Amino acid sequence: MKVLVAEKCGFCHGVENAINIAEKVLSREKDVYSLGQIIHNGDEVERLARAGLKTVENIEEIRSGTVLIRSHGAAPEQIARLREKGINIVDATCVLVKRVQYIAEELERDGYKVVIIGDENHPEVRAVMGCVRDVVVIADESDLHKFAENDRLGIVCQTTLSPDFVGKILGAIGRRSFSELKVINTLCKEAIKRQDSAVQLCKQVDVMFVLGGLKSANTRRLAELCKKYNDQTYHLQNWNELDKRMLLGKNMAGVTAGASTPAWIIAEFVKNLEAFDGGG
Amino acid sequence: MKVLVAEKCGFCHGVENAINIAEKVLSREKDVYSLGQIIHNGDEVERLARAGLKTVENIEEIRSGTVLIRSHGAAPEQIARLREKGINIVDATCVLVKRVQYIAEELERDGYKVVIIGDENHPEVRAVMGCVRDVVVIADESDLHKFAENDRLGIVCQTTLSPDFVGKILGAIGRRSFSELKVINTLCKEAIKRQDSAVQLCKQVDVMFVLGGLKSANTRRLAELCKKYNDQTYHLQNWNELDKRMLLGKNMAGVTAGASTPAWIIAEFVKNLEAFDGGG
Repeated sequence: MKVLVAEKCGFCHGVENAINIAEKVLSREKDVYSLGQIIHNGDEVERLARAGLKTVENIEEIRSGTVLIRSHGAAPEQIARLREKGINIVDATCVLVKRVQYIAEELERDGYKVVIIGDENHPEVRAVMGCVRDVVVIADESDLHKFAENDRLGIVCQTTLSPDFVGKILGAIGRRSFSELKVINTLCKEAIKRQDSAVQLCKQVDVMFVLGGLKSANTRRLAELCKKYNDQTYHLQNWNELDKRMLLGKNMAGVTAGASTPAWIIAEFVKNLEAFDGGG
Repeated sequence: MKVLVAEKCGFCHGVENAINIAEKVLSREKDVYSLGQIIHNGDEVERLARAGLKTVENIEEIRSGTVLIRSHGAAPEQIARLREKGINIVDATCVLVKRVQYIAEELERDGYKVVIIGDENHPEVRAVMGCVRDVVVIADESDLHKFAENDRLGIVCQTTLSPDFVGKILGAIGRRSFSELKVINTLCKEAIKRQDSAVQLCKQVDVMFVLGGLKSANTRRLAELCKKYNDQTYHLQNWNELDKRMLLGKNMAGVTAGASTPAWIIAEFVKNLEAFDGGG
């Protein structure tokens, strides 16, 4: 099988940084926790677990040692509780995510009703929500009723959304009655480059594979975008999930991967795919 | 013919105010000018011309006397030139239009690139353009190339646009790369009420008449909106323009009018229409 890999894919700077920090801390300490999965990639989480990283969902589960704040960040209230318990904190929050938190706080200070465009169940969004007193999360147009008409809205967005989606929601907000909108673009440019490069690639191939965790928002976004232009698009976690029938009659495959997908997963997948001979 | 008149239509507060001021000035002075048509309604302009109001297109044509600044406003540079010439100025600019001018100035002071959503040939927009040093006017999506990506945009809109149109343009801007948008809603609520009431009415009738000047932006907007929901929509200036064929087979007519359409035009039209018996 001929395989083309997207020009931009795999670990972004924020994820790479979090993994590097985790490895450094694990090399010198024993009792190391991650509050929630350090990145949304099961394979990488498992690899770090073997190196000693304990993933917990609640602060209550941490009694002592060091806790890593993952790239998605944590709410100030969580940080305060960790401090109270005397836990050592190592912050691996992505700088772009941290920026969203600061901006949300500033918008609220300036009297805006803070609006986050994104998924309220995603840890990045939850952490931003925790930075302000009053907040509305807009996942799609059906959420617009959540703020009053004529509000002064201070709008940020989850870093991994696509510009198209943000435009769609801004258009829908603009059609309603509002007094003022202040929108700070908090999209990650790396994520946009990955999206553009995935879309470009998927149009040239018979089948497109998007590699990454099923909970990874940016990977899911890549898969959604590719699906629009190539219905032979599959979101897989790794080579083990490949069903050979996906390759039936295909000559050219494209591969991209989310920002939390480690290089070794991509390399393994590409190697096996190149070696595959379906007689297509 | 059964005739229903839109709940909200005809003169808005701004236009009424400008006409009242014009009549007051004309009653006590002889040499009275309007810089451009005082409102976009030929019939009313003619009526005021008979009362002595001279409409001129250029400041050069005014040598002495009093000049009325129409409801659409004038650029500061024009006001300054009138002052230099020692002309007496009576300002009849609509307060909502004046507000757009102040906001545009403030946005520029705050470092935003000023964007006006609207028609750059409309006097209201031209006056706002004259209040800032650097400005981009967006009439539709094809104008978006006019500002650089990653600009901090301070956005206002022509007061008589529809929320739907503003939403569409904001959506298109949001899809592009920008660093910050500050959007102040400068739509006229009266104009929106007229739009809503016209749309509601046009859905109930066999034929819809939108009365008002052909240059009147808000009247044209009403006609566009009604046309969407009722293809038997006609934009007419007055009863003389009615073609009887428009009424063939129709039992129920709707009438609305722009914010610059005087009550006497509407009353005359409705009276004649009610008296019309096409045997429909």
